[in-house]
Amino acid sequence: MSLMGKPILYSYWRSSCSWRVRIALNLKEIPYDIKPISLIKGGGEQHSNIFRDVNPMEHVPALQIDGHTLIESLNIMHYLEETRPQRPLMPQDVHKRAKVREICEVIASGIQPLQNLTVLIYVGEEKKKEWAQHWIQRGLRAVEKLLTASAGKYCVGDEISLADCCLIPQVFSARRFHVDLRPFPIVLRIDRELENHPAFCAAHPSNQPDCPPEVTK
Amino acid sequence: MSLMGKPILYSYWRSSCSWRVRIALNLKEIPYDIKPISLIKGGGEQHSNIFRDVNPMEHVPALQIDGHTLIESLNIMHYLEETRPQRPLMPQDVHKRAKVREICEVIASGIQPLQNLTVLIYVGEEKKKEWAQHWIQRGLRAVEKLLTASAGKYCVGDEISLADCCLIPQVFSARRFHVDLRPFPIVLRIDRELENHPAFCAAHPSNQPDCPPEVTK
Repeated sequence: MSLMGKPILYSYWRSSCSWRVRIALNLKEIPYDIKPISLIKGGGEQHSNIFRDVNPMEHVPALQIDGHTLIESLNIMHYLEETRPQRPLMPQDVHKRAKVREICEVIASGIQPLQNLTVLIYVGEEKKKEWAQHWIQRGLRAVEKLLTASAGKYCVGDEISLADCCLIPQVFSARRFHVDLRPFPIVLRIDRELENHPAFCAAHPSNQPDCPPEVTK
Repeated sequence: MSLMGKPILYSYWRSSCSWRVRIALNLKEIPYDIKPISLIKGGGEQHSNIFRDVNPMEHVPALQIDGHTLIESLNIMHYLEETRPQRPLMPQDVHKRAKVREICEVIASGIQPLQNLTVLIYVGEEKKKEWAQHWIQRGLRAVEKLLTASAGKYCVGDEISLADCCLIPQVFSARRFHVDLRPFPIVLRIDRELENHPAFCAAHPSNQPDCPPEVTK
């Protein structure tokens, strides 16, 4: 396996954090190969000794690129931004950059960690739906409020940014947990705006090589 | 209240996310005023209508600076880095930058959100200690593993970075929840290295204006 060849993304079809990175790679037109890591099979391949050497947090995604292995989706996206300036996903203006990071962090620290698979297993089957709904609703209320000040066509103004790479997968997770999205009209509008965008479509769970055939659209 | 005067940090003495930003401000020698937000009083001042306009996530910290209000600690620290290049807290090298962000994100997305006050109240009094210990131990195991590859005197090489701003407050939280830190020797070494650093000391919970007198060292 050449570490200096095409980047390899350790990914799971339904992982929202893997999906963020897939969108960013697609938007920047960076060719990559996917190495699927099943979060389900045998209790989760992310907990195997082999994968723990890739990512000690036992999470996807991880990206092998430029001879290094990177973990944490926001880190990976910022690395791509710093090393592949084509099709920028961060604005130039420092205040707009802060707005993008705010939305990313609210989702990546304030919503997703509380409803990811590892946490929901620990919460238990009986309580997990209510638990996930509670934290997603709480977080999306804040995101909607931030968007009232920042959104244009997309999350921050009229250019697609890392904030959109985080928002769209989070909306998908919200639907999975049957969260009522009607209180979040700007979130819904941006989701509709991007649902047919080629980079977002190609990154969608249903278009992943490890998506089970019975789920594929 | 002048938005263009000295920056105002909405902070709570024991909040690890507020503490991260206090360290960064101190390291960069940026004068600031603290506006204490009690996370305890009357069910939490962060849930008041007034503060919800400052931060719709109802979390501290928030920073009023340059005529804007910023939320999310990592975002605030990166904004300071982008606008106040003195005493850099991010390396120049893209791979080292990625290492810093990895450690920051593991703590900010993988540990802290699972043991913050809002979540522990939702988990309930009976289970909260075991819950917090579980996620802190899990996360620090990953941090220790990352540090074996990245650490010099500090988290990434021999320069203090944003990773150290995140690590030290997380170690304090670990102690609060009686997590056994002996399995994490590099974490402990860096914690000792920085415990007497003036910027870290001045940011410590016990040195905050809103620290209750009975707690002050």
